[in-house]
Amino acid sequence: MDIPALDAAIAAKAAEIRELKAAKQDVKEHVAALLNLKGQFKALAGYDHGTTPGAPAAAPKPKQLTKKELRLLERQKQAEAEAAAKATSADPTKFGDAPLIQSREAPTKKFVDVGDIDKAKAGESFWVRGYLQNVRAKPKIAFLVLRQAAFTIQGVLSESKDVPKAMIKYADEIPRESVVDLFVTVKVAAVEIHSTTQKDVELEVTKVFTISKALTSLPMQIEDASRSDTLLNAEGSDYVEVGLDTRLDNRVLDLRTPANQAIMRIQSGVGQLFREFLYSKGFVEIHTPKLLGGASEGGANCFSFKYFDQHAVLAQSPQLHKQMACACAGLEKVFEIGPVFRAENSFTRRHLCEFTGLDLEMTIKEHYSECLDVFSELFIYVFDNLNSRFKRELAIINEQHPFEPLKYSNPTLILKFDEAVAMLNAAGIDQDPLEDLSTPNEKALGDLVKAKYDTDFYFLDKFPLAVRPFYTMPDPNDSRWSNSYDFMIRGQEILSGAQRVHDPTLLVERMNSLGVPEADLQTYVDAFKYGALPHAGGGVGLERVVMLFLGLENVRKASMFPRDPKRLRP
Amino acid sequence: MDIPALDAAIAAKAAEIRELKAAKQDVKEHVAALLNLKGQFKALAGYDHGTTPGAPAAAPKPKQLTKKELRLLERQKQAEAEAAAKATSADPTKFGDAPLIQSREAPTKKFVDVGDIDKAKAGESFWVRGYLQNVRAKPKIAFLVLRQAAFTIQGVLSESKDVPKAMIKYADEIPRESVVDLFVTVKVAAVEIHSTTQKDVELEVTKVFTISKALTSLPMQIEDASRSDTLLNAEGSDYVEVGLDTRLDNRVLDLRTPANQAIMRIQSGVGQLFREFLYSKGFVEIHTPKLLGGASEGGANCFSFKYFDQHAVLAQSPQLHKQMACACAGLEKVFEIGPVFRAENSFTRRHLCEFTGLDLEMTIKEHYSECLDVFSELFIYVFDNLNSRFKRELAIINEQHPFEPLKYSNPTLILKFDEAVAMLNAAGIDQDPLEDLSTPNEKALGDLVKAKYDTDFYFLDKFPLAVRPFYTMPDPNDSRWSNSYDFMIRGQEILSGAQRVHDPTLLVERMNSLGVPEADLQTYVDAFKYGALPHAGGGVGLERVVMLFLGLENVRKASMFPRDPKRLRP
Repeated sequence: MDIPALDAAIAAKAAEIRELKAAKQDVKEHVAALLNLKGQFKALAGYDHGTTPGAPAAAPKPKQLTKKELRLLERQKQAEAEAAAKATSADPTKFGDAPLIQSREAPTKKFVDVGDIDKAKAGESFWVRGYLQNVRAKPKIAFLVLRQAAFTIQGVLSESKDVPKAMIKYADEIPRESVVDLFVTVKVAAVEIHSTTQKDVELEVTKVFTISKALTSLPMQIEDASRSDTLLNAEGSDYVEVGLDTRLDNRVLDLRTPANQAIMRIQSGVGQLFREFLYSKGFVEIHTPKLLGGASEGGANCFSFKYFDQHAVLAQSPQLHKQMACACAGLEKVFEIGPVFRAENSFTRRHLCEFTGLDLEMTIKEHYSECLDVFSELFIYVFDNLNSRFKRELAIINEQHPFEPLKYSNPTLILKFDEAVAMLNAAGIDQDPLEDLSTPNEKALGDLVKAKYDTDFYFLDKFPLAVRPFYTMPDPNDSRWSNSYDFMIRGQEILSGAQRVHDPTLLVERMNSLGVPEADLQTYVDAFKYGALPHAGGGVGLERVVMLFLGLENVRKASMFPRDPKRLRP
Repeated sequence: MDIPALDAAIAAKAAEIRELKAAKQDVKEHVAALLNLKGQFKALAGYDHGTTPGAPAAAPKPKQLTKKELRLLERQKQAEAEAAAKATSADPTKFGDAPLIQSREAPTKKFVDVGDIDKAKAGESFWVRGYLQNVRAKPKIAFLVLRQAAFTIQGVLSESKDVPKAMIKYADEIPRESVVDLFVTVKVAAVEIHSTTQKDVELEVTKVFTISKALTSLPMQIEDASRSDTLLNAEGSDYVEVGLDTRLDNRVLDLRTPANQAIMRIQSGVGQLFREFLYSKGFVEIHTPKLLGGASEGGANCFSFKYFDQHAVLAQSPQLHKQMACACAGLEKVFEIGPVFRAENSFTRRHLCEFTGLDLEMTIKEHYSECLDVFSELFIYVFDNLNSRFKRELAIINEQHPFEPLKYSNPTLILKFDEAVAMLNAAGIDQDPLEDLSTPNEKALGDLVKAKYDTDFYFLDKFPLAVRPFYTMPDPNDSRWSNSYDFMIRGQEILSGAQRVHDPTLLVERMNSLGVPEADLQTYVDAFKYGALPHAGGGVGLERVVMLFLGLENVRKASMFPRDPKRLRP
């Protein structure tokens, strides 16, 4: 190294040590490395690092550099710093801090995913890349846990001609959660490994490079965040419990736990299966505008803002435009997966200010039972295929958050609202036949239905008209009721839907009777004046489906970066 | 009919006639029908309709009604009006205005979709429902065009024992674009029918019911809006041309044209194929928040608003959160399809203020060429399958908007930015090697590439660093360049992407050098401090892909309900 490179290396090492402060481990070695660098500096420069040089001529003052030259200089410095970092490794062919991966050369290395490593690969050698979850070093051997996605595997560094002592020490000093590349050979484990997801194999490690170094002090440990509810709740447990706020404040770390990796894949799976089924039935995916002039469904609970010289609101559902697409534009069978926005100042376990709506709307010929049939088939398809295709993810989630598999029947049980009222009343629970269900009554009803019909999933049909939005079709025989329904999982609502009003006169009547100003929704009302197809539909909250399918206790755990009235970051 | 029913029928008919004003056709018949109703009224009531009755006792003044009673009364009136409407039909078993479809009874009728009717169904009888696009009536016969989704078919009403003269008259009087139910028998057409999509069959109609009546005067005719560009552009053509503003102001009507129905299905297809391919490669679908505290990518061109007691902006792309999900949370291969919001006061043919982003982000091991390989395979998969699975839709679009099929190679051509500059310069076109391409230069380059390589689709790689966002990875050998790329279709950009900076120090340097305030993006920068995976990705505008694949001249035609600085409705 030359003087500037040494200078950069010293500054980097000093910075690294400052960050190490909080952790007790390995400060000593870093300080030794720093002193060594300073020694090298003095030998080369002839004066102590950090002091003003006496004898040596000051470097010629550079002319004013152009931006381009500055950039070139920066790049050069960086390359030198990297070379310096490499050089501090005792053996840069075997271990050390890798230069920044910047696409220098075409890819040549063979990498295998941790989740794909099993006994069938015994004897094979390749690279793995992942987060270094833990290292436990003894003088001649180190055990490490490497994690990639939802999977963990044990690696072993055993002192040998291929694995010098310095390499074990180096590995032990890598901050936890850094990204590392390991060159490994797969070995069958002598005894089953309990602490990792890959239980029958371990990796003999012969090369270790750090690709991206983590801060030494993390706001939470992944092993703490991954611990099973059973252990945490056990009598006398004194494990660290990572609170929800800490998790959500540091969501990128929290998402690294195997259970959260699996939850995000289940969330993806619900969307995938929802679409798969609907495509197979001839549905068209649509994208309705989220920016609306006028009001969204009547104006309450909307975020509003200035849109150039107009006033706009964020759509609180795709309701109006999906109906227009289906019934007025004649697309007939449409669905949408997209964000919906609710300015509800509410902090319950099941509300979010932004969530992902799974919406569908379809024409019906004679009766909205045609739509309920599609919904029943759809949900059974989603549940069946989650259970069959996502076995591995469900097992991983179950390990941390044990839950009962969802019970559901085929076809789905349809319970009439008045039957539900009767069941509640018979159980001594007050429920007005013309009022909506309260959250506790929903849950109580869920228990009663489970006891009577042995299902966690059912449709509740024919709600009182007065508790439904203006676009709900009244019951043809008794206008106290309506052609509308909710879907319930484990005693909580996940979907709300109905046959919609397709007649513009009745639509305006309904708006007037509920005090919805027609002017705000003029283009919507007008759309029904050019011939409209009878139709029905519904909307599901994706995160709520995931939460309830998995028996999670808070919808935030099913949202990647949840938003509530206080939480707008990360 | 009793007196109130007759009164309602007279009022309805009078209203209908008022709406008829603009159209010359069939006013006479309606007036005759009105006079007939008034005659019936007089016969029954003993006085002229609209005058004060002399003899008959006034109805007893009703007591103040409760809301519930009012609703019941409304329902009753409605039922009577429906019955009245039925009764005015000469034969309510064969034709007339159907009662509101309100899910009275379980479905029993057999319906077949217009698009599924062909010679194989000759002799079969069933119901069809669609928009009545046109009727041409002669004394003893009427020809009608029924349209459902992108498909049209000819129906014939021929006077016979099953088809009374009054039924032909009734059919002719139905306002165009009303929704009708026809009971039909399929016949092989004697000669090919040119004016409909179903050319080898026609329907013998024996029942006609109006399900939803359109206004008599429409802001545009679907036949005008469906006319082919070839006819419109022909010399001496005097066809009515429906302007883009008229179309977009009345988008639900505009979307009814077969070409637009097909365009919306192609749009759905692009999303479907994009996901299909990525699921098969192990990608996870994510939903990043659209509501952001702080800034989105640095703050320019964002819609901003009050979020409870905080300040929020709408995400102008999922960039920051998709990177965090991929590289910092370790999901590794992620994609998203969702809305993105741009507060750009721009009225070009290719800009929208809200569009649908198809975004992906993936980890790379050594070089971002790994990501370009995935993109190349992905786009080829999408194009190949659009061409094979959506033949019918492409043919329908081609009929109205003729376009050249997209030329593309496998693998995709990758052109370096400096080669592109050389090609432009060689062709006598000024292009600074360190500046971005202007729109005209993009188009010129598209032509040069087409001439040289015979492809409409290519990747332009290694853009100047100075024209790319802060999260772009600089080229390892020359920091005037960067590891970034655009994808081009028919000379226009559809995707922008790059290897991203995963090193937090370099990230902050890049932000500082571009003047992006670190404080605004603190949670993003912090996410890279816990170990981050090298990664690359890109984002595509769905509507732009659809526009350019189909050779449409305006992106608004590929958006269901487009948003630009002036257009926030419908």
